[in-house]
Amino acid sequence: MSDLNQNTARANILSDALPYIQHYRGRVIVVKYGGAAMQSEELKNAVMSDVVLLSQIGMKIVLVHGGGPEINALLERMGKIPRFENGLRVTDEETIDAVQMTLAGKVNKDLVSLLHTNGGSAIGLSGLDGGMLFARQLKPELGFVGDITRVNPKVITTALDGGYIPVIATVASDENGENLVYNINADVAAARIADSLGAESLILMTDVAGLLKDRNDPASLIFSVQLQDVPLLKAEGVISGGMIPKVDCCVEAVRRSVRKANIIDGRIPHSILIELLTNEGAGTMFVKQQLSANSTVMGL
Amino acid sequence: MSDLNQNTARANILSDALPYIQHYRGRVIVVKYGGAAMQSEELKNAVMSDVVLLSQIGMKIVLVHGGGPEINALLERMGKIPRFENGLRVTDEETIDAVQMTLAGKVNKDLVSLLHTNGGSAIGLSGLDGGMLFARQLKPELGFVGDITRVNPKVITTALDGGYIPVIATVASDENGENLVYNINADVAAARIADSLGAESLILMTDVAGLLKDRNDPASLIFSVQLQDVPLLKAEGVISGGMIPKVDCCVEAVRRSVRKANIIDGRIPHSILIELLTNEGAGTMFVKQQLSANSTVMGL
Amino acid sequence: MSDLNQNTARANILSDALPYIQHYRGRVIVVKYGGAAMQSEELKNAVMSDVVLLSQIGMKIVLVHGGGPEINALLERMGKIPRFENGLRVTDEETIDAVQMTLAGKVNKDLVSLLHTNGGSAIGLSGLDGGMLFARQLKPELGFVGDITRVNPKVITTALDGGYIPVIATVASDENGENLVYNINADVAAARIADSLGAESLILMTDVAGLLKDRNDPASLIFSVQLQDVPLLKAEGVISGGMIPKVDCCVEAVRRSVRKANIIDGRIPHSILIELLTNEGAGTMFVKQQLSANSTVMGL
Amino acid sequence: MSDLNQNTARANILSDALPYIQHYRGRVIVVKYGGAAMQSEELKNAVMSDVVLLSQIGMKIVLVHGGGPEINALLERMGKIPRFENGLRVTDEETIDAVQMTLAGKVNKDLVSLLHTNGGSAIGLSGLDGGMLFARQLKPELGFVGDITRVNPKVITTALDGGYIPVIATVASDENGENLVYNINADVAAARIADSLGAESLILMTDVAGLLKDRNDPASLIFSVQLQDVPLLKAEGVISGGMIPKVDCCVEAVRRSVRKANIIDGRIPHSILIELLTNEGAGTMFVKQQLSANSTVMGL
Amino acid sequence: MSDLNQNTARANILSDALPYIQHYRGRVIVVKYGGAAMQSEELKNAVMSDVVLLSQIGMKIVLVHGGGPEINALLERMGKIPRFENGLRVTDEETIDAVQMTLAGKVNKDLVSLLHTNGGSAIGLSGLDGGMLFARQLKPELGFVGDITRVNPKVITTALDGGYIPVIATVASDENGENLVYNINADVAAARIADSLGAESLILMTDVAGLLKDRNDPASLIFSVQLQDVPLLKAEGVISGGMIPKVDCCVEAVRRSVRKANIIDGRIPHSILIELLTNEGAGTMFVKQQLSANSTVMGL
Amino acid sequence: MSDLNQNTARANILSDALPYIQHYRGRVIVVKYGGAAMQSEELKNAVMSDVVLLSQIGMKIVLVHGGGPEINALLERMGKIPRFENGLRVTDEETIDAVQMTLAGKVNKDLVSLLHTNGGSAIGLSGLDGGMLFARQLKPELGFVGDITRVNPKVITTALDGGYIPVIATVASDENGENLVYNINADVAAARIADSLGAESLILMTDVAGLLKDRNDPASLIFSVQLQDVPLLKAEGVISGGMIPKVDCCVEAVRRSVRKANIIDGRIPHSILIELLTNEGAGTMFVKQQLSANSTVMGL
Repeated sequence: MSDLNQNTARANILSDALPYIQHYRGRVIVVKYGGAAMQSEELKNAVMSDVVLLSQIGMKIVLVHGGGPEINALLERMGKIPRFENGLRVTDEETIDAVQMTLAGKVNKDLVSLLHTNGGSAIGLSGLDGGMLFARQLKPELGFVGDITRVNPKVITTALDGGYIPVIATVASDENGENLVYNINADVAAARIADSLGAESLILMTDVAGLLKDRNDPASLIFSVQLQDVPLLKAEGVISGGMIPKVDCCVEAVRRSVRKANIIDGRIPHSILIELLTNEGAGTMFVKQQLSANSTVMGL
Repeated sequence: MSDLNQNTARANILSDALPYIQHYRGRVIVVKYGGAAMQSEELKNAVMSDVVLLSQIGMKIVLVHGGGPEINALLERMGKIPRFENGLRVTDEETIDAVQMTLAGKVNKDLVSLLHTNGGSAIGLSGLDGGMLFARQLKPELGFVGDITRVNPKVITTALDGGYIPVIATVASDENGENLVYNINADVAAARIADSLGAESLILMTDVAGLLKDRNDPASLIFSVQLQDVPLLKAEGVISGGMIPKVDCCVEAVRRSVRKANIIDGRIPHSILIELLTNEGAGTMFVKQQLSANSTVMGL
Repeated sequence: MSDLNQNTARANILSDALPYIQHYRGRVIVVKYGGAAMQSEELKNAVMSDVVLLSQIGMKIVLVHGGGPEINALLERMGKIPRFENGLRVTDEETIDAVQMTLAGKVNKDLVSLLHTNGGSAIGLSGLDGGMLFARQLKPELGFVGDITRVNPKVITTALDGGYIPVIATVASDENGENLVYNINADVAAARIADSLGAESLILMTDVAGLLKDRNDPASLIFSVQLQDVPLLKAEGVISGGMIPKVDCCVEAVRRSVRKANIIDGRIPHSILIELLTNEGAGTMFVKQQLSANSTVMGL
Repeated sequence: MSDLNQNTARANILSDALPYIQHYRGRVIVVKYGGAAMQSEELKNAVMSDVVLLSQIGMKIVLVHGGGPEINALLERMGKIPRFENGLRVTDEETIDAVQMTLAGKVNKDLVSLLHTNGGSAIGLSGLDGGMLFARQLKPELGFVGDITRVNPKVITTALDGGYIPVIATVASDENGENLVYNINADVAAARIADSLGAESLILMTDVAGLLKDRNDPASLIFSVQLQDVPLLKAEGVISGGMIPKVDCCVEAVRRSVRKANIIDGRIPHSILIELLTNEGAGTMFVKQQLSANSTVMGL
Repeated sequence: MSDLNQNTARANILSDALPYIQHYRGRVIVVKYGGAAMQSEELKNAVMSDVVLLSQIGMKIVLVHGGGPEINALLERMGKIPRFENGLRVTDEETIDAVQMTLAGKVNKDLVSLLHTNGGSAIGLSGLDGGMLFARQLKPELGFVGDITRVNPKVITTALDGGYIPVIATVASDENGENLVYNINADVAAARIADSLGAESLILMTDVAGLLKDRNDPASLIFSVQLQDVPLLKAEGVISGGMIPKVDCCVEAVRRSVRKANIIDGRIPHSILIELLTNEGAGTMFVKQQLSANSTVMGL
Repeated sequence: MSDLNQNTARANILSDALPYIQHYRGRVIVVKYGGAAMQSEELKNAVMSDVVLLSQIGMKIVLVHGGGPEINALLERMGKIPRFENGLRVTDEETIDAVQMTLAGKVNKDLVSLLHTNGGSAIGLSGLDGGMLFARQLKPELGFVGDITRVNPKVITTALDGGYIPVIATVASDENGENLVYNINADVAAARIADSLGAESLILMTDVAGLLKDRNDPASLIFSVQLQDVPLLKAEGVISGGMIPKVDCCVEAVRRSVRKANIIDGRIPHSILIELLTNEGAGTMFVKQQLSANSTVMGL
């Protein structure tokens, strides 16, 4: 392409983003950040750049993160072998300390730094700050793994109103006022936080392409799912394994007050931008009811 | 390109716009709209779409317009032959009525409508509204052609603060309180309005590519000019003919309080987007002093 | 009278206005301006002075205007003969352009200028600005004559909150998003705008004294009419001819949310002041229900 | 006059008040109320009605009052003979109690009541409230007669901002924190309060017509006096006797920050309205410098 | 105690006040001030100091006062013998003037002064100011003794929002707009004002220890009474004599909207502090329903 | 003491705190928390309770903390031996990770939890959040130990304005935009933060009684030191050893913009309350100049 044509092509793409920008302006988007997108330095930087961009053009982005590999790294450094039951971390006292230190002290603050490097302004919060997340023990045998009982989003909106991007590490206080801390699944926390904020959208970044009708055929991606169709998709095995709890988070969020939830492929660079600013979307969207024909992609 | 690659390419372009969006966020950009970009319905629609986009991502766009061809059309419809002296319209009483009706009643409100069609929200103003523009007679032989003596931007900022895009028709009230209306050159009005608002940027849309070192070679485009170099460029004939008053507007605006002024090529679709959101720019930029190396394009 | 007595008499009149000023303070009064009061330069100036006075003492005056004679003048200047059917202008494409230019470009902005000359501060708006008025075609045979389907008063309240007197030209956008403009009857527009603002009062300036029991006897003026009595007055012929649509506007406004509507005699200098600031009133008032004895005149 | 003509005459008078209303809108006017206007029930009611009117049309009226006759009445009722030295009340402990009770408890609250009866909303304050007035002893032989040392107008502006008319009884706290109360001359207090508020105007209501060149000829009223001419007028005896301290208050206020001060004739009904809303004025105005010809009356 | 121990003891007491401060922060406490606490200079000063302290740590204190002894003193000074019927003052025209002067002019302003001496900032108001209290005649034979018909607390909240402690003298305007003033029982006024403000607490300072089961045994103090138990306590004679109307005020306030009402012993220094900031309380508390065990004292 | 006397004694102590509460109300107090007061659970709880109390009565408390022992504990758990040079931690890459995790993830969030348990509302921040602290390397041989170059307090004031107590872990971003984190001495950070906020007071909690003239005699405590006397006290050895850098922090803060700095004994329960709310103070105060006699203790 000639320079001129290239410029025009670039401008066309920017121009095409207008309706999406108009739609999301001023609305809350909760992004659960994790998986491959958090392990590759390049993808990490791209996600942080995207978050800053979306924040700058008027969206209220809330970033919720986990940090399993980083927690394991610290535990191993401490000579402690991480233990799991049914995919859930067995969390004794020493482990919850490692979880809190890693999530709230390391991963969280590193993301805050990276957002600043990309020109944004962020505050790193944990579920302990401002009494944001309260929980009770999920199962005695798992130790300090918590089940959220209450979400108070005021500290998040204080950060958003101050012009900051809130970055949230998912540990919670004890519901009964005991001086205990619980480890919270980040997908679940993101869904509950999205609901507490009446979010427009919940986006879960994963290491899969989305729901595939035929798991061997990437072209069989299901773009949009209504809540009522989820049981059938589970019965058919389209939703299975590790996707089940993620889909359940999406369903729960949409059933409460979130307008739509997306499972997107974090392995693709700028997948959040593709999801929010183009007519393609980037994964599978969960909505309450069938949307009208011409609003399918954006979920309008 | 595959779909995936195409999406990624699109996302990259969106991502590349971040530093520009960050820079212009919350700042005032005064766009003088006219020429070919105002005659082609397609270009017109593209410009209005661009203005809405820029407004939505946080810039404070002020649109100033002329309407020579439309004025001529009405005059001709009235059986009156337009007369010019040195490029300036000889404006008798009947003509100033036609000017006011065309600019403030037709062109202005049509642009407002088109901005709404593109999803924006606009208020059409003239220099008479809110006592915005005052003028005195430029030359007796030109009749009601005015020279701006005072600009009161309060009505413009009221519109901006209310979330509206102000669209301005350049007629002015009489400085001495006489019940008279003056026709004002739109380039000049845009420059003075930009100054009154302490604008970040003044953009004049024209039907040329910008300043060319060799007028037969589009590749000889001068990207950036410091005010101090303007006299030499005039002496060399690089700035000549119809470009002289346009360059003078840019120089005057920058000499006062506007950070930079651009003469861009309105014939290229989305030239405003190219100018404001890419590392190319779209024409010639006038600045007070040489900017540092890595900020040349954006004028940072 | 001696000087002293004269001063005292003047002061007494000012003092008598107190309860009216108290009553209307901070409330919205929509004035439909037209007819003789708009053709005589002297009356025009008096009305603008009154509007500024009322605005300065705390009322929120919204001025809605037509401009039939001015539209005819432009059409004739363009060699086009105005056509009417049942009192409604047949409005082809060329005519709607002339209407828009005259109303929004000429009459509107001239009134804005005159308000400034009288010390006020005004913004000239049309129904296109800020998406204020939307309409659909009234009857195919009338062309671009519109029937209001939606009123969005936000741009009017932005102007009022900014301390400006909104002056409104009654053209409207197309309900279906087509790039069309409709000519709207100014009485009807004023009534709908008054309703959208929850106005205290709608005042229609006309060229008659108000409703007369005996049309040959000016002393038979009916001061106040309840909505329920309108059908009888129509049956008796007291409301007839050109008064019917004006009375219907008043009835519609009061039936919705406007507290009272007045048809006043615009031929009397300062008739708005007489209506709003004295115990006389200036024409016929329409109210929902009989008011208590001592509040009849003011409609309190 | 016919009814119609009478209405028109009334409307003309209202219309004539526009420039004065525009000028004083939002500005502070401190009125020292006393003398005959405070003794006649009819005049009292007219003044309170005027104050409410002026307040409603946008002026910030502050009412400062004395109450000599009422103090004497209480003292006499208590079997105590009022004593004066050079026109100043000899104020022993029992007398200052009577002063405080009469001014702050009786006169002040009665005026507040009367303002409410006239449709206004007022707060009665004394110089003790909100730490407004501080004083030291003027002369030992006069007892609790104070000389103002400090004015803190915050409590007055709190009342004005809350939409209330502040009514002020002129007693003051002790500068040194002693638990003492001082009686303050109301003219002096009004002048100092006007200065502390940066008032547009100080109006002293008196029982004289103003300054007369020939004290036997009411037609010899001096409308306007520049500060620099005061010494000569004193030397000539035009300013003499009880007028001297009143003129000194006016001079002091204008010398500090008040734009103009007026001594008006409180015996004329509605003299404040005549002063503030007509081209006559009602007494003698003191200004710093000669005003331009066409602004003489209003002091613009 | 050693210095160090003493300091620690002091700090412990301050620390113990935390839950009470947290509870009352930002809430309205209406204190009826009177009796012994108003006659002893030392107690008076202690109460004013307490009011300033509570105001400074975030409570919204409203001080309502009577002034029977002071009224008697003025009446006697005027040679008039105070007359009572069933404990209510027979109030002729001369007496209501004395009441108004004493309460609004003397007692009220003296308290304002004393609050300033203690570092607070106060505004003295009467029920006449801002149209706060309206009343009708209680019984013809009592003259100007009023029964409250309406409370408008806006002037009180204006004072509170401005950072002032409102001090209120309990005289009222006539409900029917007559130019009359009524004397209002201060306990009753305090209860009605507390209700109009939705107060957290009404505190009546008295000259008794509270309700005693055995009136000869101070140790038989009843700490807390539910409304439903009041009839029985009256039947048993525990509530009798002068306590009956005070208890009725408490009952009425709590039955409406006040959370709790306390009759405290004003003879004890700092009894308000003891009541509000310690786990002891200082008298008898009236509440709607039995509070839970661990919140008894504070009434939480 | 009898119950009554005890209550009165308690009330007297509360009452005595009034002038201190008045003085500090709305002002910023930066408390550097550390040492013994952070190791004992009981002292820790007392400090958090004090911070909540002070915050509730109107002070703006900012809590800055270190966490040396906790860092050592993690390092040791990781099998790494902490190394120091001249009292400064040698901080390699692994160590800075441990520092960040411990301070920002563990100590910080545990304090936030404890403040909530005590009824407060807090946000845990690090110097990385909101771009608060920037630093450069202090000495190459110390690794990631930083020297503060810039403080941006906006994120702290956002937290304070939102009603939260900011708790700050003292790590900093790299001045040159490198993706590095520096460990910052908490005393120094507290001093710089206090300066950036224009704090009223900087309080350093230590494990000593303050400056002693004779280090063996606790009774020789120096209550107040002027900056000019510090060199002499160093020369005399009164300021020596570990006190030198702490005193230097105080001197630097006061020399810039902090009104006073205190070194207090954190081993005494409630030492902050004693310092801020009693006439004793709790340690040594550093001020610019000698204060007047009667304001010595409070530093007024």
